[in-house]
Amino acid sequence: MRDLDELKERLRAFARDRDWEQYHSPKNLSMALIVEAAELVEHFQWLTEAQSRALAPESRAAVEQEVADVFIYLVRLADLLGIDLMVAAERKIGLNEKKYPADRVRGSAAKYHAYAPEAPGSVPDDGRDGD
Amino acid sequence: MRDLDELKERLRAFARDRDWEQYHSPKNLSMALIVEAAELVEHFQWLTEAQSRALAPESRAAVEQEVADVFIYLVRLADLLGIDLMVAAERKIGLNEKKYPADRVRGSAAKYHAYAPEAPGSVPDDGRDGD
Amino acid sequence: MRDLDELKERLRAFARDRDWEQYHSPKNLSMALIVEAAELVEHFQWLTEAQSRALAPESRAAVEQEVADVFIYLVRLADLLGIDLMVAAERKIGLNEKKYPADRVRGSAAKYHAYAPEAPGSVPDDGRDGD
Amino acid sequence: MRDLDELKERLRAFARDRDWEQYHSPKNLSMALIVEAAELVEHFQWLTEAQSRALAPESRAAVEQEVADVFIYLVRLADLLGIDLMVAAERKIGLNEKKYPADRVRGSAAKYHAYAPEAPGSVPDDGRDGD
Repeated sequence: MRDLDELKERLRAFARDRDWEQYHSPKNLSMALIVEAAELVEHFQWLTEAQSRALAPESRAAVEQEVADVFIYLVRLADLLGIDLMVAAERKIGLNEKKYPADRVRGSAAKYHAYAPEAPGSVPDDGRDGD
Repeated sequence: MRDLDELKERLRAFARDRDWEQYHSPKNLSMALIVEAAELVEHFQWLTEAQSRALAPESRAAVEQEVADVFIYLVRLADLLGIDLMVAAERKIGLNEKKYPADRVRGSAAKYHAYAPEAPGSVPDDGRDGD
Repeated sequence: MRDLDELKERLRAFARDRDWEQYHSPKNLSMALIVEAAELVEHFQWLTEAQSRALAPESRAAVEQEVADVFIYLVRLADLLGIDLMVAAERKIGLNEKKYPADRVRGSAAKYHAYAPEAPGSVPDDGRDGD
Repeated sequence: MRDLDELKERLRAFARDRDWEQYHSPKNLSMALIVEAAELVEHFQWLTEAQSRALAPESRAAVEQEVADVFIYLVRLADLLGIDLMVAAERKIGLNEKKYPADRVRGSAAKYHAYAPEAPGSVPDDGRDGD
């Protein structure tokens, strides 16, 4: 497959050929998506961060399948909702660039930000970094 | 952005410019991914399936942002693991086609399958459909 | 087991006997918890709400195991963080009672609330209910 | 509240007083549960394991609320499915004791086990530990 449009068409045909469109409500697809995301998380739950950066080949192959499952359900869900993934991503990156300006959050982000769990580096300052 | 490669590059730059690469271990990114997937699920949790198929414009716009967040973390995670999303999806669809042959699972899937919660239509036969 | 304290002690012993305390950081336990929550979701993802209210015995037994897994990790996580589950629940219910006063949210909740995906009944008003 | 039974009754009254029982299908409650589990995960996603073991007081208080939310939905879901949480946990711990015998999995678990992502310590042996 060359692009997201072709993948979208392929997934439409897959559901249609099995008469599964009836199950593919956005509600159900969001559930299927998070189930696959959790199968991905499962591979990493007992690993250290360092181990997660250096997976053995067999683990990496298994993780690749979970990544594919998340991708498949995401493309299918976006299709049902009429969302163009590339457009949505571009728009969201634009919002993120405004929310986290590079020159302000670089380095020890914790010092510039109040505790915001969604931002990397916004660790609550509890004195562990020595200042 | 035209394609996944360009999006991947854009996300690399975003992390690099903020010195956030240190936080982007596959372990952490899998957590961020599932958190965004849950924000998607949250929009649908109290809706009926029918309601989820006909979102009001403002809900749809909010859902689009969550979909974008999942997509962004998925592309970033795949990049760190050296996974090509299109190749992985194509491979997985091939496996799914073998696992769920269209001519066998079509229609009342429950009759052909033992209970397998991952397969649409494989509802345990508990006599509610009258046969 | 009679109560949460006894369960907590039992889980402490389980981890200690296997030398698994090293893996039981709150970060890792939160991952294990959501993985089990997803296994619960998986049972319901293709079911209608009505079907989910009337599980066949074998499904119910499988669901019971997933519920137990979530409970086990939750008790373990609370123990590590020094959280008393009953106290925390009572406190949270008190907050919820203030946030969602019964006399204001009863009945067609959507009419009284702006869209708040976390509140049952706060379905975006898209005209489907005829008013 | 003294015990799980009292909490269960309290949650029944909460839903009944708001006419929210209609939304509380097991399907929907499993979604609400995983959404709360994700809010818990969100607190830990960018923290190191060590940081997650030593939360600042304000983070710990926020985490306590998410833990309570998971607990509340779990108790509510178990009630709807007629599951006794203490009985289910005891049964599951019994199964786990057989699945992971203490004398076999203790210590460097990876050496005794094939890769099983659900077991702590069953890290794929990729030669990083030097043997």
